[in-house]
Amino acid sequence: MELKNLFNPKVVAVIGASRDPEKVGNVLMKNIMESGSGRTVIPINPSASEVLGKVSYKSIKDPKEKIDLAVIAVPAKSVMDSVKECNEKGVRDLIIVTSGFSEMGNKKTEEKLKSFLNQNKMRAVGVNCLGIYDAKSSLNALFIPKERMKFPKPGGISFVCQSGAIGLAIIDLAAARGYRFSKFISYGNATQLDESDYLEYLSEDKDTRVICMYIEGVKDGKKFFETARKVAKKKPIVVVKGGLSEEGKKAALSHTGSLAGTKEVYYGIFEQINMIKADNLEEMFYVASVLENPVSIKGNRIQIITNGGGYGIVSTDAISESRNLKFAELSEKTQKTLKKTMPDYVHIRNPLDISGDATSQRYKDALTNILSDKNVDIILLVALYQTPLITEDITNIISKAKAGTKKPIIVVSTGSDFTEKLSQKLEEHNIPVFMFPHSAITAIDRIVGYIKKR
Amino acid sequence: MELKNLFNPKVVAVIGASRDPEKVGNVLMKNIMESGSGRTVIPINPSASEVLGKVSYKSIKDPKEKIDLAVIAVPAKSVMDSVKECNEKGVRDLIIVTSGFSEMGNKKTEEKLKSFLNQNKMRAVGVNCLGIYDAKSSLNALFIPKERMKFPKPGGISFVCQSGAIGLAIIDLAAARGYRFSKFISYGNATQLDESDYLEYLSEDKDTRVICMYIEGVKDGKKFFETARKVAKKKPIVVVKGGLSEEGKKAALSHTGSLAGTKEVYYGIFEQINMIKADNLEEMFYVASVLENPVSIKGNRIQIITNGGGYGIVSTDAISESRNLKFAELSEKTQKTLKKTMPDYVHIRNPLDISGDATSQRYKDALTNILSDKNVDIILLVALYQTPLITEDITNIISKAKAGTKKPIIVVSTGSDFTEKLSQKLEEHNIPVFMFPHSAITAIDRIVGYIKKR
Repeated sequence: MELKNLFNPKVVAVIGASRDPEKVGNVLMKNIMESGSGRTVIPINPSASEVLGKVSYKSIKDPKEKIDLAVIAVPAKSVMDSVKECNEKGVRDLIIVTSGFSEMGNKKTEEKLKSFLNQNKMRAVGVNCLGIYDAKSSLNALFIPKERMKFPKPGGISFVCQSGAIGLAIIDLAAARGYRFSKFISYGNATQLDESDYLEYLSEDKDTRVICMYIEGVKDGKKFFETARKVAKKKPIVVVKGGLSEEGKKAALSHTGSLAGTKEVYYGIFEQINMIKADNLEEMFYVASVLENPVSIKGNRIQIITNGGGYGIVSTDAISESRNLKFAELSEKTQKTLKKTMPDYVHIRNPLDISGDATSQRYKDALTNILSDKNVDIILLVALYQTPLITEDITNIISKAKAGTKKPIIVVSTGSDFTEKLSQKLEEHNIPVFMFPHSAITAIDRIVGYIKKR
Repeated sequence: MELKNLFNPKVVAVIGASRDPEKVGNVLMKNIMESGSGRTVIPINPSASEVLGKVSYKSIKDPKEKIDLAVIAVPAKSVMDSVKECNEKGVRDLIIVTSGFSEMGNKKTEEKLKSFLNQNKMRAVGVNCLGIYDAKSSLNALFIPKERMKFPKPGGISFVCQSGAIGLAIIDLAAARGYRFSKFISYGNATQLDESDYLEYLSEDKDTRVICMYIEGVKDGKKFFETARKVAKKKPIVVVKGGLSEEGKKAALSHTGSLAGTKEVYYGIFEQINMIKADNLEEMFYVASVLENPVSIKGNRIQIITNGGGYGIVSTDAISESRNLKFAELSEKTQKTLKKTMPDYVHIRNPLDISGDATSQRYKDALTNILSDKNVDIILLVALYQTPLITEDITNIISKAKAGTKKPIIVVSTGSDFTEKLSQKLEEHNIPVFMFPHSAITAIDRIVGYIKKR
């Protein structure tokens, strides 16, 4: 499906554009105007001649320009009329943020809308949604005041999200944590375009490396199963399912009009088509943040290197509890070399605890030797920067080591400002950094499980 | 056991004080000197007449002052001599940071040291440890350069930690996250004072409201069992056990010389004596951050209030999966009042989704009515501040509501700067705030389980 106009429109009309800063139609105008340069934004409002300095029109049929995308933010009762006018104007791509349809019991109105959209080959995001954000084309067509949140930098994660609230909170947090995004779609009731359509589009989108999904219910089970199976072979899909419990299901029905289905059915499908199931939203982004980097994982044998003994031990425990990971056993050659390079009191084993008095150089020796060991597929570097002899150039050492290998290096570092500063440097070099061992290991475990089945 | 001198000494001697900023004995001197005002610090160094501007002595026997605490940072082979001199001087309280004992296979040397300490009724933290931090008395007797980490403000969490690395990383992170600490003890090999002694002391310490523990192995099983059982009745103990797996056990042996024991035995003991077992370090601090606030939880019926539909649903799912929590059912009276106050499209139920267009006032109406409902024991407020109509005074509304009730209000808010700012305001009013629903619910679940059994 061609959805280019949704994500990178040249001319956007906002139907229901408003001069009142508290109205959705005002926030949307502002966000679209301020987000992308070289984009024309046309307000449609029957009772204003001008909105935010732009000439306003009574109907979308009035402006002369060809319009790529119409964002509709009028009350539910006026949506159908607006859509009809869009059709007459020849606008095929719509975002309808308006709520008050099946999630409020008004199923018939939504069915009618759907039929009209389909008959006229229009493509609509929504209804009852937040809109769209594209980090690369700089389109912010979300109805959230920008002062309240941050937006992620361009990158490889796309997030298809049935819930607006989850979407915006996670986008905001993702920006703070430095996760890099391609596209974000809040699709609400999935009146016409549904999760499967977005999946299919993103599987072809060259900017998207990993797809995250929050779904409450799928619209068309068969379509979803077939699409997702095809897409999962091409790109990893990480999914959180909402409405797993009886109480959650009831809530989902009144939230997005979704029939949430049983946990067993959904989990069975995810397993069968190799989607990566995340137990919660945090886990979803842990997995995505690793996959967003160009990693090449060839096996499941993991080696821990740490300067923090206890951290090595809890990491070891977490690996033991994992489903898919195995402890690497260093080759005799590596063991021999390490025995020469490391002080006597460093036991050459897994976890490799290079001790609290480790220097950056000792990290370098351990890392480079182990990276070249064929018995090791993945390196978990549990690096604590609080210890006195670690110098700031540890980040250069790790980045350089990473540049010379295809093996993934996953870093765990816990701390405040000093640690954050060094972690950010690593992230700039596409090295994923986690705050806690268990989060890192859960993410790697899920990914190895996915790759094994692919 | 009286350990006052360890945590609030007036006169401290640093044996092995050094002029070289890369040496442990220098960092220790500096940290102790810079941390507490009105504290005398005396360097002991046989080959320097002055360290960091203070007159240095050849032996601890030389200064005239009565010395409350000696911090020993000399090589392993000299530790025994230093301890003997302390004994002659009448110094009863020691922190021995030096490593190179049973964790390196030198069991006998450590046994001898232990005997001497016991025979002479001395009290020693260590060996092979980081030292002590007391937020209230402002004692920083840790051998970590201060520039690299932050220290938490005074408060109710004490952390007894066998691993130095875990201790410092977590202290640093805890400071960044605003968790408030009483005492931190890195006790390493537990040569003489062991985890049970610290537990007993902290159970009497009026500044400690909740005790966190990271242990690899206990020294004396019977003593631990009896002490912890007694203490757990008085104060909650949250524990993470390292070395649960076979591989982790081996690592623990060479880390702190601990026999890590089996998972089943430890978990059985924790269950039996009502210690709160945390699955990982992050979870430990989630639990502690709730218990650090004066909360009074009378039952397990929890009510969700949210302006984020999807967030309400994932919270509902997480509560369904919990061990100890039940969904509250609002009384008829509350339902009636809420129906009057809330817009038509707000379903009066659990989760209570007051909708994305909720104002701060709508939050106030929901919160105050539900707080006064006898069917509700705990409130989970999933508040997303990105939505346009929530004003900043939402924090005043929540704080005021909290001030008028003994029921716990736990807040979940996800986001970046704007959200962080409001979350910090709540935390200043002793309201625990979480980034994700699942973390909040796990913490409450563990706490309710503990209270039920107490």
